[in-house]
Amino acid sequence: EIQMNLSVCVQLWHSWRRCSTAQTETLDRVSMLLQLCVDRYYVSPGQTNVELFQRGLCCNYGPLGMELRRNLLDQWWHSVTKSRAQVFGINTLSGSRETAALGQGQLRIVEYEHLKQSVEQKELNKEQLIQEVHMLLQRSPSTRTNLLQGALEQFVPSLELVNRKLPFGLAETGLCFQPSEGSGCSAEVTQTSLVWFCSPRTSSQWLDHWTRQRLKWWRKFALSPSSFSSSEVQQEELEEAASRGVRIIYDFPWGQEIVETLWSRGDAELLSIHKGARSKLQCRDGRKSVPHVVSITANMDRGVMAFLSNSLQQLKREDSKQKLHQRKVLKLHPVLAPIKVALNISRGATVELRQVCEGLLQEFLEAKISVWPGYLETLPTSMEQLNAKYDEMGVLFTIVIGENTLESGLLQVRNRDTTIKETMHISEIKNFLFRYISATDNI
Amino acid sequence: EIQMNLSVCVQLWHSWRRCSTAQTETLDRVSMLLQLCVDRYYVSPGQTNVELFQRGLCCNYGPLGMELRRNLLDQWWHSVTKSRAQVFGINTLSGSRETAALGQGQLRIVEYEHLKQSVEQKELNKEQLIQEVHMLLQRSPSTRTNLLQGALEQFVPSLELVNRKLPFGLAETGLCFQPSEGSGCSAEVTQTSLVWFCSPRTSSQWLDHWTRQRLKWWRKFALSPSSFSSSEVQQEELEEAASRGVRIIYDFPWGQEIVETLWSRGDAELLSIHKGARSKLQCRDGRKSVPHVVSITANMDRGVMAFLSNSLQQLKREDSKQKLHQRKVLKLHPVLAPIKVALNISRGATVELRQVCEGLLQEFLEAKISVWPGYLETLPTSMEQLNAKYDEMGVLFTIVIGENTLESGLLQVRNRDTTIKETMHISEIKNFLFRYISATDNI
Repeated sequence: EIQMNLSVCVQLWHSWRRCSTAQTETLDRVSMLLQLCVDRYYVSPGQTNVELFQRGLCCNYGPLGMELRRNLLDQWWHSVTKSRAQVFGINTLSGSRETAALGQGQLRIVEYEHLKQSVEQKELNKEQLIQEVHMLLQRSPSTRTNLLQGALEQFVPSLELVNRKLPFGLAETGLCFQPSEGSGCSAEVTQTSLVWFCSPRTSSQWLDHWTRQRLKWWRKFALSPSSFSSSEVQQEELEEAASRGVRIIYDFPWGQEIVETLWSRGDAELLSIHKGARSKLQCRDGRKSVPHVVSITANMDRGVMAFLSNSLQQLKREDSKQKLHQRKVLKLHPVLAPIKVALNISRGATVELRQVCEGLLQEFLEAKISVWPGYLETLPTSMEQLNAKYDEMGVLFTIVIGENTLESGLLQVRNRDTTIKETMHISEIKNFLFRYISATDNI
Repeated sequence: EIQMNLSVCVQLWHSWRRCSTAQTETLDRVSMLLQLCVDRYYVSPGQTNVELFQRGLCCNYGPLGMELRRNLLDQWWHSVTKSRAQVFGINTLSGSRETAALGQGQLRIVEYEHLKQSVEQKELNKEQLIQEVHMLLQRSPSTRTNLLQGALEQFVPSLELVNRKLPFGLAETGLCFQPSEGSGCSAEVTQTSLVWFCSPRTSSQWLDHWTRQRLKWWRKFALSPSSFSSSEVQQEELEEAASRGVRIIYDFPWGQEIVETLWSRGDAELLSIHKGARSKLQCRDGRKSVPHVVSITANMDRGVMAFLSNSLQQLKREDSKQKLHQRKVLKLHPVLAPIKVALNISRGATVELRQVCEGLLQEFLEAKISVWPGYLETLPTSMEQLNAKYDEMGVLFTIVIGENTLESGLLQVRNRDTTIKETMHISEIKNFLFRYISATDNI
């Protein structure tokens, strides 16, 4: 149903006139958002690429999109591993030869020349040919569709790490591949996964605990937190092994989409992967039970799309000549914003002013504050045009350095969200930015 | 020749007795290193997995290996994007439908069921069958073998970003897939890539610049920096498009292996990918030239292996009873060490002592100092055994909290590299660690 909404929306887009006003507004908003993402270096141009992006799949990201996703993944990592001492990061392979278990193995990596040559062997008859192709496919590694199986495989070596004590979790982020049911057009998704091992009687409580944590996390970075919600999966929709499931959903302009799914999965998959070797899997919780698994899986490509969609504000304002302007601002959360500060020269780019900029740039880079070197741009633009551009990029602060700075050390700092311009001494700016970003991180 | 050395070494391993003393020592050292990596949670157990690791390929990493690679990738990212304002991060897809160019496309992702069904169609004769398999293969996306092509494709949208001004660079890290010439056994590698676009007359200078930078970077984190060296690629070994090449090499116990390669590649590939559309590619450097490409590509899985190998020290020492002990220490650079500090209780784990540990743990986690919750371990071990274990894990500092801490706030801090134990107040410890790690970062 969710996918329906989206494809309906895309169709409507191309048949503009038939839409109702409400629908038209939605489409306007969606197409404006996508155009902005391309224009402002979040997503690389090209229709196919933009479609991948809108569908919540991995696409070619521009520098800002890449940095936004990087920040999002860092925040996820920090939040999950910081939350408790018993969460450990792992890294598993994306291609695996041990397939079949858990219904994996739909996508195979084959060597083009190798398969071609095998098929072209003159001596084979049709039956042998089919046989040969089968064998080659079966031997080829399959690409993972999720991170769960890797974590389940790593359960035994991890048990030693925690002295067989429950609960504990294995965290991983990485690329997964989605088969597309026959169309032959597979897709990539950046997933985050926490696989939580706990005693059977606590698994439902842990599912609730992680649902609360994760929903809080998504809402923390949202401009309108209520766009994120959670809903219990209905009995008839439950995956085979699961006893309960919860979805975290984001309200896109075109309808709801799932950003994260939590399952209480029991012990069946763990037992199946380790071929029923109960004694290897038992933990020291008094009853020697095989732990239950709670899996928490998010799609961070769709997460990027959700936060971009959530943070775009359109504001109408009159200028001094009473002309109506529409201002678009990407009000991304300060810790997510890919560029924290843009550095500009007010007028007459003298050698001295450029040197001041270079110095500040280095200072910011060393403090790991991402900075946009606006002073390098050679096209003349008014400060108003620049601010409009930076607002669309979601740049938190814009610094303007002028003749005045050389004399007094003072510079102008504009805040994206308030549009207020402050005068500040050049020696204070780094700490000011640092404090501002940390303060928003701890709310 | 380099691969030869390794396989010879592996063979020798299994025929122990035929080796010379020097060779036996090498093999001892290698097998000890690999065993330590498995025992101390760097690499997951299993012979196949350990072999991948030793061959410099991506493998299943344990929590410590995962964190080490993460730290290494972070350092690379920071060093490359911090070095100049004109380096931008991108993210490209790992599967691509636009193949063939640059000799890509050896590995294809096919849908198992889809291909199987196509082959099993009753009506096809042998010729049609071969035709069908060909078509399916050709339509399947290919997985990337390097990050170069993605960056070359992103050149045009990036040009706008820099106002057509040279030089600039596109940085990316990600998984690549290596075909294995017929064996059907493809492998994964974590690559870092900086693709640098510059004017034709400066490309050789830039190659030298980046070689210096990169060699300095590798050496910065090494215990014995001279194990990393660079060497110019001989004329007869140059890749087709390249005019010059440099390799950065690490001296493993079994011989030399390449960790990074820099090529001065000219403009042929850029022109070929953009179908010769010179006008789209020209930059504003006075002569309207198509830029030349310098590619800088490292294998970070081999990087992990190199730094582990480089940092392992065996020290002999006598204990108080004049018994000879062999101490193994993983002296990883402080910024790379996956665990900065281990938290332990000296004796009698009372509720109060555990609470002190929990408090410190939270403080460290929030400050993003990675910490090992040793106080959760339930198996009784002597402090000596614990220190030996932490040394093998490469843990920088070990904190011991005792009854004394509750009264005076004092705790004991042991330094991995000096083995010296200091007494410190609990309120000072976080800043002490912070300063220590930052200081080593800025040398």
